[in-house]
Amino acid sequence: MSVDEAPRIAIDAMGGDGGPATMIAGAAQARDRDSSLRFTFTGDEAVIRAETARFPQLVDSIIVHCDDVITGDDKPSQAIRRTKSSSMGAAILAVKAGEAAAALSAGNTGALMAIAKLSLRTMHGIDRPALAALMPTLGDNDLVMLDLGANTDCDARNLVEFAVMGAAYSRLALGIESPRVRLLNIGTEELKGTGELKEAAAMLRQQTGGAWRFDGFIEADRLGRGEADVIVSDGFSGNIALKSIEGTARFITDLLRRAFSSSLRSKAGFILSRPAFALLRHHLNPNNHNGAVFLGLNGLVVKSHGGADENGIANAIAVAAKIAREDLTRRITDDLEDFRSHAVQTEGVA
Amino acid sequence: MSVDEAPRIAIDAMGGDGGPATMIAGAAQARDRDSSLRFTFTGDEAVIRAETARFPQLVDSIIVHCDDVITGDDKPSQAIRRTKSSSMGAAILAVKAGEAAAALSAGNTGALMAIAKLSLRTMHGIDRPALAALMPTLGDNDLVMLDLGANTDCDARNLVEFAVMGAAYSRLALGIESPRVRLLNIGTEELKGTGELKEAAAMLRQQTGGAWRFDGFIEADRLGRGEADVIVSDGFSGNIALKSIEGTARFITDLLRRAFSSSLRSKAGFILSRPAFALLRHHLNPNNHNGAVFLGLNGLVVKSHGGADENGIANAIAVAAKIAREDLTRRITDDLEDFRSHAVQTEGVA
Repeated sequence: MSVDEAPRIAIDAMGGDGGPATMIAGAAQARDRDSSLRFTFTGDEAVIRAETARFPQLVDSIIVHCDDVITGDDKPSQAIRRTKSSSMGAAILAVKAGEAAAALSAGNTGALMAIAKLSLRTMHGIDRPALAALMPTLGDNDLVMLDLGANTDCDARNLVEFAVMGAAYSRLALGIESPRVRLLNIGTEELKGTGELKEAAAMLRQQTGGAWRFDGFIEADRLGRGEADVIVSDGFSGNIALKSIEGTARFITDLLRRAFSSSLRSKAGFILSRPAFALLRHHLNPNNHNGAVFLGLNGLVVKSHGGADENGIANAIAVAAKIAREDLTRRITDDLEDFRSHAVQTEGVA
Repeated sequence: MSVDEAPRIAIDAMGGDGGPATMIAGAAQARDRDSSLRFTFTGDEAVIRAETARFPQLVDSIIVHCDDVITGDDKPSQAIRRTKSSSMGAAILAVKAGEAAAALSAGNTGALMAIAKLSLRTMHGIDRPALAALMPTLGDNDLVMLDLGANTDCDARNLVEFAVMGAAYSRLALGIESPRVRLLNIGTEELKGTGELKEAAAMLRQQTGGAWRFDGFIEADRLGRGEADVIVSDGFSGNIALKSIEGTARFITDLLRRAFSSSLRSKAGFILSRPAFALLRHHLNPNNHNGAVFLGLNGLVVKSHGGADENGIANAIAVAAKIAREDLTRRITDDLEDFRSHAVQTEGVA
């Protein structure tokens, strides 16, 4: 995968709750924001042609026809067998063939992971890929959180590799010079947590390079406080944390809606407070943080929320374009070598 | 432990961020609400005497003097050695000796768990105790969530026992006739999650009694939607979920505060909307759901939030009084026997 100032993004036009209309309108919006982008749409050619016809800026897009669509109910094992026939698989294969710089899908996450892993393979020196996303904080920056569900069980080595990959991604995505990396745990003392976490922490404390630093454990109630730039966990815990956060945000939004429609006085207050709520909505709207990245594969793959709107899709496309332009794969390789050379030196000294 | 209409609660007066002043003011408030309650305060006698002197309704309290206080930094192993000398240990020992119907502490959770487990021992047929708390939902009832951090690693048998104990507690605390029990997982399909979860689900599907029913897996973003009455997980995942929820609630409250102080117009809107925010605050205030219960011990122990105010302490005392009056230990024993007899029958038929 070469560094390209005008990257082509392969888009699974059939995935996601909004289907081709949303995916293609999102691409049009991304193209409006960044005219150097090019697209390859995979899926039902007639449908894609009808949708792209609405946007003159998409006239130079490539369409790869596929009869088959992976649905939310398909198991990863079933999806893998349909790599060549499906719109999701075709987007990944375009990356593998070097015909696209990155692939984007809003479809079934487990299927996407399975197809991407089997088609692109993990990078040299990485045992397992991880799914990473940006999350809002009360600090100056967003943070990178991984793994968000690609790996249910992880050993210490996996967690250490996630730390290195997450740090590389945070430097690229957030522009942080020396990101603070922390392991998600149920306490901050050295003796807390599972054996894997304790072992991973011991390995991460060997990090002496300047690319990032390990700041120990963090508890789940401190995630949004601006105390870390990268949060590392196994995919089970990361998924529980992410979904608890999403669910609570929705819970509170629903409570507010009930509260403000409970009386005329509250309704008047709501109208007066609209700018304040707009700020809240901006922070909590998942479309503004759309685009989770698979780290550790020989090729770039971005996962959009299934429920993203066209603005969310355009944001996910911007993520794909950024990691392609700034060559995330090369950065991860460099950081991994750097970490291992320092770790070996430290061991030699000890 | 006998069922007592006028239960005596042993209160560790020294634990918690607010110290004796908050613990004793909370007890006074609980006594105002329920005049049949009696208290035994453990800790520094002079301090307790000075604080109780402010409340005539506490004049019949017993004081057990202890020189030693377990702090937040003490490791469980250190705390155990100080069971007899510490205010936390003395409260537990009062339960063990039958001198109190339940113990309450707002101190170090790990230490409380260790002392309670070693002093009271687990109930016959229970491998490990669990920490359970009530959480608000958008449905008609609160829900019971366990384990919240007592056990980092759990096997399928532990999870099944948590389900039975959580169901018994939800029937008592929430008055639900046949609670819906679910296992916290990262997907709802049968093949999702760890081996322990899949095995526990298979065992729970054998439940055919009327006391509760198993409704399969639930994802963390659905916890507050009113789709379950009992959520079961290992202590690591449960703690991650609980703290993610608490952190997100605080995150959004902070965002709202910022938003509403950003302009005069917003401030005016806030004043007009005060009743709406009071409703939100009521739902999110942890004091209103204070009082986590250790399930599965030969004796009742309640853990208060360290940061609880006197209203929160009074609520935790009400929890302790309720589980004492309604004999939670006996109910768990009965439900456990019921579950096992049904499970064996099903196995016999299969």
